[in-house]
Amino acid sequence: MTAQAWHLQPPTFAEIEAAAQRIANVCAVTPVLESPALNARVGARVLVKAECLQRTGSFKLRGAYNTISQLLPDELARGVVAYSSGNHALAVAVAAHMLATHAFIVMPRDAPRAKLAGTRKLGAEVIEYDRHTEDRSAIADALVRERGLTLVPPYEDRRIIAGAGTVGREFALQLHERGAVLDALLVGCSGGGLIAGCATAFATLSAATKVWAVEPEGFDDTARSLHDGVRVANDPAARSSCDSLLVSTPGVLSFEVNRRLLAGGVAVGDAEVATAMRLAQELFQLTVEPGGAVALAALLRGALPITGRTAGIVLTGSNVDADTYASLTAQR
Amino acid sequence: MTAQAWHLQPPTFAEIEAAAQRIANVCAVTPVLESPALNARVGARVLVKAECLQRTGSFKLRGAYNTISQLLPDELARGVVAYSSGNHALAVAVAAHMLATHAFIVMPRDAPRAKLAGTRKLGAEVIEYDRHTEDRSAIADALVRERGLTLVPPYEDRRIIAGAGTVGREFALQLHERGAVLDALLVGCSGGGLIAGCATAFATLSAATKVWAVEPEGFDDTARSLHDGVRVANDPAARSSCDSLLVSTPGVLSFEVNRRLLAGGVAVGDAEVATAMRLAQELFQLTVEPGGAVALAALLRGALPITGRTAGIVLTGSNVDADTYASLTAQR
Repeated sequence: MTAQAWHLQPPTFAEIEAAAQRIANVCAVTPVLESPALNARVGARVLVKAECLQRTGSFKLRGAYNTISQLLPDELARGVVAYSSGNHALAVAVAAHMLATHAFIVMPRDAPRAKLAGTRKLGAEVIEYDRHTEDRSAIADALVRERGLTLVPPYEDRRIIAGAGTVGREFALQLHERGAVLDALLVGCSGGGLIAGCATAFATLSAATKVWAVEPEGFDDTARSLHDGVRVANDPAARSSCDSLLVSTPGVLSFEVNRRLLAGGVAVGDAEVATAMRLAQELFQLTVEPGGAVALAALLRGALPITGRTAGIVLTGSNVDADTYASLTAQR
Repeated sequence: MTAQAWHLQPPTFAEIEAAAQRIANVCAVTPVLESPALNARVGARVLVKAECLQRTGSFKLRGAYNTISQLLPDELARGVVAYSSGNHALAVAVAAHMLATHAFIVMPRDAPRAKLAGTRKLGAEVIEYDRHTEDRSAIADALVRERGLTLVPPYEDRRIIAGAGTVGREFALQLHERGAVLDALLVGCSGGGLIAGCATAFATLSAATKVWAVEPEGFDDTARSLHDGVRVANDPAARSSCDSLLVSTPGVLSFEVNRRLLAGGVAVGDAEVATAMRLAQELFQLTVEPGGAVALAALLRGALPITGRTAGIVLTGSNVDADTYASLTAQR
């Protein structure tokens, strides 16, 4: 194994604890919910971490703020750049604003309008690109070289993963308070930063819990990579309603963590995701975006053998255009 | 003083602690925010409790859940009724749904459409009335008599006040964690339940803090009642953009608490509220409804002598129609 830069090495649990301190006055402590109707339907006890209630509408603020708040004064003076399908964009824009630095955000032209408009409204400079023909990281890298900006990557950074890991730490502590121990934790997965952070937290706080990645069908690169032992890519022709989970391969750093700590991965289809979104509205009155509902979708379709046991899921985000939400959740 | 029913006596701090336990798995712990730009503008340190990020969009879920979760099985079987300009309606609807009881909500016909539609969407039965000609409590009382429903009042109940008081308890504990002590706490006030609960919590946790009520101009019944020592009413012809703060007199129970614990009251105009809403968006990226912004408005216009000292404010809600929000926050 070759030596890696500091920021490309896995974060420790202590770094997740430190991140929790840094974000304590910025992020909400999102509640853990339970529904007897959901328990009955799944045939297991299900504890739901409602991270979709987080400020900026997703867990991404935790990692963005944890990272930007550690930059040096001269780095803050030059500004930051991020690429994102939306949730990371909103989070970096808000964190940058709070920390008084300027943010450039590289976003796909077909991102939900609410995410594009929201990011601009927050004072960030949005640079649009075509997600099927252009390389967003190359566009961001050019800005780093030309303007001296600091890249705030969506998952390839130990500070991002440690920040995202505060979701897992917080969930584990809340479960401990109510005396519940999870047999399985299901977390949505794209680049894999959130689940890498959550798995790191659970490895320390709840080592008996098996952690499973949930991905959209056609974007199950992490599940297949875990199976094969090496990072594999998705078919570029794949499409999914889960706009926040469309990364083509697992991150190098996140997979380094996930291949050691995850039990495996499962995939869910768009129809299952829509059913999960409807149920989140009906049972918890929560608006969940498609990518935020995959863990619930996996539970509902019985993707894991958890009958009679206890499962935890994270609902990761709520940023969805009203018309998209209405059409996806309409009864068919 | 005549003997009062149990639920019409002031809650103790221990009841606020118990309420905090009951709601722990239902409500978010909302963050405390600070902005150097706001501090500079006000000339004081300002700590902002972003309760507008609470589930259902306002602090009201805390009291509604604390109350309904203490009902007996036969009361839950018959159902609950509430009257509300919107935030309490949403909260009772959500709490009732979570606790598997049916909710009837008496709402003014001119309430924000988002609040009317939101309440119906949550499965509650909405009964509309004219806020200028009809008596909402009489309509609710009739439902109590005819159907055996339990009234969940917006503020006249020790369980509601104890639940609302968890905002104050949580804020005081968060301030303690960061070593800050408030010289003044400013809380928006309508019926007075939230501020009564917050003042009760601060009396135990931060007794040196002076607690001030902030009301819309024309609806400063609590300020005038505190001054006069008896409950006085507002001019029925008064109008304000703060749709969530239009109660005509202080509550009997809340005033019983507030006359002992509050330092006084101040009033703010619609233009000052709009300025505060704009600033909450600009500095904190928070959508705040008019009634949720009055405490910030009072600080901005220098209504209290806090130069060089530390003030805390609660941003209480975020439920506002998009077009109303746009027109109120448009630069003039």
